[in-house]
Amino acid sequence: MIIVMRPGSKQQEVNKVEQRLTELGFATHVIVGEEKTVIGAIGDKAALNSEGILNMPGVESMVPIKKPYKLVSRELKKNCSIITVGNIKIGGGNLVVMAGPCAVESEEQLMQAALAVKQAGATILRGGAFKPRTSPYAFQGMEEEGLKLLAKASQLTGMPIVTEAVDPRDVELVAQYADIIQIGARNMQNFRLLQEVGQTGKPVLLKRGMCATIEDWLMAAEYIMAGGSHDVILCERGIRTYETAVRNTLDLSAVPVVKELSHLPLIVDPSHATGYARYVAPLAKGAIAVGADGLMIEVHPDPSRALCDGPQSLTPEQFTALMRELRGLAEYIGVNLP
Amino acid sequence: MIIVMRPGSKQQEVNKVEQRLTELGFATHVIVGEEKTVIGAIGDKAALNSEGILNMPGVESMVPIKKPYKLVSRELKKNCSIITVGNIKIGGGNLVVMAGPCAVESEEQLMQAALAVKQAGATILRGGAFKPRTSPYAFQGMEEEGLKLLAKASQLTGMPIVTEAVDPRDVELVAQYADIIQIGARNMQNFRLLQEVGQTGKPVLLKRGMCATIEDWLMAAEYIMAGGSHDVILCERGIRTYETAVRNTLDLSAVPVVKELSHLPLIVDPSHATGYARYVAPLAKGAIAVGADGLMIEVHPDPSRALCDGPQSLTPEQFTALMRELRGLAEYIGVNLP
Amino acid sequence: MIIVMRPGSKQQEVNKVEQRLTELGFATHVIVGEEKTVIGAIGDKAALNSEGILNMPGVESMVPIKKPYKLVSRELKKNCSIITVGNIKIGGGNLVVMAGPCAVESEEQLMQAALAVKQAGATILRGGAFKPRTSPYAFQGMEEEGLKLLAKASQLTGMPIVTEAVDPRDVELVAQYADIIQIGARNMQNFRLLQEVGQTGKPVLLKRGMCATIEDWLMAAEYIMAGGSHDVILCERGIRTYETAVRNTLDLSAVPVVKELSHLPLIVDPSHATGYARYVAPLAKGAIAVGADGLMIEVHPDPSRALCDGPQSLTPEQFTALMRELRGLAEYIGVNLP
Amino acid sequence: MIIVMRPGSKQQEVNKVEQRLTELGFATHVIVGEEKTVIGAIGDKAALNSEGILNMPGVESMVPIKKPYKLVSRELKKNCSIITVGNIKIGGGNLVVMAGPCAVESEEQLMQAALAVKQAGATILRGGAFKPRTSPYAFQGMEEEGLKLLAKASQLTGMPIVTEAVDPRDVELVAQYADIIQIGARNMQNFRLLQEVGQTGKPVLLKRGMCATIEDWLMAAEYIMAGGSHDVILCERGIRTYETAVRNTLDLSAVPVVKELSHLPLIVDPSHATGYARYVAPLAKGAIAVGADGLMIEVHPDPSRALCDGPQSLTPEQFTALMRELRGLAEYIGVNLP
Repeated sequence: MIIVMRPGSKQQEVNKVEQRLTELGFATHVIVGEEKTVIGAIGDKAALNSEGILNMPGVESMVPIKKPYKLVSRELKKNCSIITVGNIKIGGGNLVVMAGPCAVESEEQLMQAALAVKQAGATILRGGAFKPRTSPYAFQGMEEEGLKLLAKASQLTGMPIVTEAVDPRDVELVAQYADIIQIGARNMQNFRLLQEVGQTGKPVLLKRGMCATIEDWLMAAEYIMAGGSHDVILCERGIRTYETAVRNTLDLSAVPVVKELSHLPLIVDPSHATGYARYVAPLAKGAIAVGADGLMIEVHPDPSRALCDGPQSLTPEQFTALMRELRGLAEYIGVNLP
Repeated sequence: MIIVMRPGSKQQEVNKVEQRLTELGFATHVIVGEEKTVIGAIGDKAALNSEGILNMPGVESMVPIKKPYKLVSRELKKNCSIITVGNIKIGGGNLVVMAGPCAVESEEQLMQAALAVKQAGATILRGGAFKPRTSPYAFQGMEEEGLKLLAKASQLTGMPIVTEAVDPRDVELVAQYADIIQIGARNMQNFRLLQEVGQTGKPVLLKRGMCATIEDWLMAAEYIMAGGSHDVILCERGIRTYETAVRNTLDLSAVPVVKELSHLPLIVDPSHATGYARYVAPLAKGAIAVGADGLMIEVHPDPSRALCDGPQSLTPEQFTALMRELRGLAEYIGVNLP
Repeated sequence: MIIVMRPGSKQQEVNKVEQRLTELGFATHVIVGEEKTVIGAIGDKAALNSEGILNMPGVESMVPIKKPYKLVSRELKKNCSIITVGNIKIGGGNLVVMAGPCAVESEEQLMQAALAVKQAGATILRGGAFKPRTSPYAFQGMEEEGLKLLAKASQLTGMPIVTEAVDPRDVELVAQYADIIQIGARNMQNFRLLQEVGQTGKPVLLKRGMCATIEDWLMAAEYIMAGGSHDVILCERGIRTYETAVRNTLDLSAVPVVKELSHLPLIVDPSHATGYARYVAPLAKGAIAVGADGLMIEVHPDPSRALCDGPQSLTPEQFTALMRELRGLAEYIGVNLP
Repeated sequence: MIIVMRPGSKQQEVNKVEQRLTELGFATHVIVGEEKTVIGAIGDKAALNSEGILNMPGVESMVPIKKPYKLVSRELKKNCSIITVGNIKIGGGNLVVMAGPCAVESEEQLMQAALAVKQAGATILRGGAFKPRTSPYAFQGMEEEGLKLLAKASQLTGMPIVTEAVDPRDVELVAQYADIIQIGARNMQNFRLLQEVGQTGKPVLLKRGMCATIEDWLMAAEYIMAGGSHDVILCERGIRTYETAVRNTLDLSAVPVVKELSHLPLIVDPSHATGYARYVAPLAKGAIAVGADGLMIEVHPDPSRALCDGPQSLTPEQFTALMRELRGLAEYIGVNLP
């Protein structure tokens, strides 16, 4: 940690800051510059409680040097984590495509969607049974009934299931049905939910919050890993910016940044990011070329009648065409898309 | 709702959209423009399930005309809501100042803070017993022990308490101690928590999410009101922007916008918004002049040693000086700051 | 245009708005909904001067239906524009790679860079002679001397030149040397510069402003085309968001959006977007996979000594390796990278 | 400047960075931490050309310690600058209200507006003769004819004039008529225009760019001051965020931040920030309470017919009512609003 003192700060102020740093367990090095004095503080045991130093007289700013996360860090683990779900591998050169409807709406809808995405080559079935909706009056999901349908679709197609938990009280129930538990963007900093999901030990798909920095996102993954689940898959799904032509701005630069900072696999959801079916295919291809470990894509038998996120859902035909393109692209790049 | 067709869309496409709108229960009016055809759709019973229309051939965009919220709306209730907590009124010309430490850290710390803010003129005591922290390794709050200390501080000073709930499973417990249940920015779209808090019937302080639009925020309030708690106090606490000189950008324009759209009272938290104690006073005064119904301000007996948010906490002396300024300003403006 | 009246607006207010619309040359259609009245206004001759209607009593909002641009619009020209510079084609399946140093610093530096990028397969040489710098004390470019060196490098390598104009007074001079005149992000709404550059009739590379919406950007291109230069190449170079891990957030979703709205070619600059050399290659590949018509990439013989934008510049070796990957990718996708 | 080395960086890499820093004229101090090594670099003569160090092997990040601006800095000049225009003082407790139409449209419109704002108590007349418009088809201003009308209005009312320059070639002309030359938000980083305006020696009103950080903005002011004009008035006018309820988000936290960093006076433009007349008054009051040195407000005799920015213009009646409120507020606060 570096503490920057204001220009003209008094020696006594510098001394007090040093003293406080020493109390907190840091070793200190003072560098007197032409205009400003900076104090280097080494050691981090007490760093979590040191931010109040910013409020001491003469202090201008504090610059952290260490990353605040450990378990997710590439510094801890040099190799890419490969997460195994059933007989599917995710990460380290193994691409995954998770596809299916935004929400489970009915048995017919889900089975149609499941069979279609299976046939097109998806390896994991997505579908929400608990839906976080901005309106209290909107369809909130079929809940346990939806989970049962997902289990049925999984049996029918042999595909593992990824489905969202939105409440710590439902985590145990969701964990009974899900092969991967999803944490949605709106719950990325629902820390109690992260802890609860972490304790299941199950693989977790962690979507990036709409206004989460990459560091916030990695800290959320750290919560899950600290809880006990080491198989965290990150999912970039667009961030909120001023641009209104798309629902959110897909941040593909997050892919190389996360790969540098963390060993965890990272997939991309172009459906939620753009909000429009017609932009899904180009961004899916871009995501693979940038180096993502896979995709999450919404597919609905009849998008115009979907109860949730219809505008962004592909038809089975569109998804089949996209998978064909992706398979060629993966082969060209030299990654494994089963 | 207005559906805008693409230039060159076919008559048959227009017909299909009209047909689908009719099925959904809308009455339709087609306007043929020079380049584009637009369809006006009247009636809203099925509007929630109509967004899939965007995925129909020939459709360019959809423009909602009705607001998606009802209970929070100024259209429903013309007069400003006044919320009563103990013998304190909030809204409709009655200002409130909620003050205290970010987190309850110890009995000594809380009692010192409570007595100081009481003496300076705060009317409600704030303090977190459950803390949502970005790091799993940071202090997470004293939990029930903290709630008990808050109750003690309330008895000591006569001030009602506002404190945060972060987990649906704790809401009942928090409701036993809190006079106002706070929903933090990170949980603004934790819809299960909103529902649970709504069912307590207690007053709720709803902070704006860091990347929530004003509409998102009002929809979150709608969740609480739809659940049963009609006493919702909104709290602007800064939004995430590209500017890094402050922690978040305090959006004071939200004050007149919310006042126009909703009857609910709205207070401002300059402490969390700016993240620096030295900017709290000017923005607190600005908030009152813009028309906010009150403030939430962090005060700590020794900010440099606070376990949470020390950089933004005022000392009791700074808070006392600010209250003096605010009281004069309120008097000048003609609002009631008791 | 759709005018939405407030709930409870008076008939007289509706009448006045209709009357004003008629004066402005619109035909009007009134639709009376359950809560609100909307007025459809057809015709656009006077639309530019109609925004004051928003300030009339009873008006809640105005929704434009027509796009504000014409010449850049895909509606005007269905086929992708192909722009020819020397014997190089840009757009419509023809990729271009523009490469070279951020700034022309010396003859030696430029010739080294030019030969290296030529050999690696770049087809257009970039290099700034006039540099818009945030600090008045930073190197501002070699100006005409730099243009002369660019001409020399062009002769040496046979590559056409793209270089920036920053002042309307320099446009004539720049136009004497440049094959493509670049408008930088900071000047995207320097309308006088756009007009002046438009009048040269030369090809123009128009970078997206750091906080420009896609519509703002297309309007800037409209300025250039309205001035007379029809050969506009758009360049996405990242937008400003809250994320600080990269310099700007590269918006690759802009590629399919722009392709839908406009016939103009669009290239991507991953160097300025990310600000770090190590992220350039993955995003360059992503850009091509998303469907961009080319790339602009900074290459410097010794990035650690660059006078401008060193952190983001590739070495000749890194660029050569990237070109090899891009060539394979282009071939796989079926686009032409000469 | 602090250079942070990556964990596991080699001694040789650290040595090379030190060597390069020494070459550039810095004195260096190496601090070896538990995980990372940091190098403190003292001296700043060559700092401008040091950013390429980020591209050296083993370097993780660079942290600037010194501010990049000098002339605008509060560190250089402790007291608030007071700028004198005619017999009007701006800054240091002297409030100014600049008011008038967005654009000069006709003699009648301007004289009506000028007389009205004069009577209501404005001290400086605003009005654009050169208008930067997003559409090339929109009204671009009356140009020199408009400047002449402004001069006439100034004679009529005795008010000094603030008007915008948009092209370096017009600066001399504008300087003949204007008492204060305005630089608009879109030209905040039009560095040639800043230099040209700086050389006039005239007072300059510098609006904040829509996506400018406070540091960018102060650097733009530095350009003007480095050019020769020391009388720079900063003007906050809203920044671009994801919120769409207002045109831009007025950043009132910029007021105390700028006051801390710079000695220059700062005014606020709530008209352009919000884009709606009905939000102007509350934010004008907020700006004064936060500590701004004045306001810029758009007033038009008939906003519904304005050729530019009608939705945000106050009527003379609304402006008169606002001035009455502001005068009371200023008196209460103890600042001078003549």
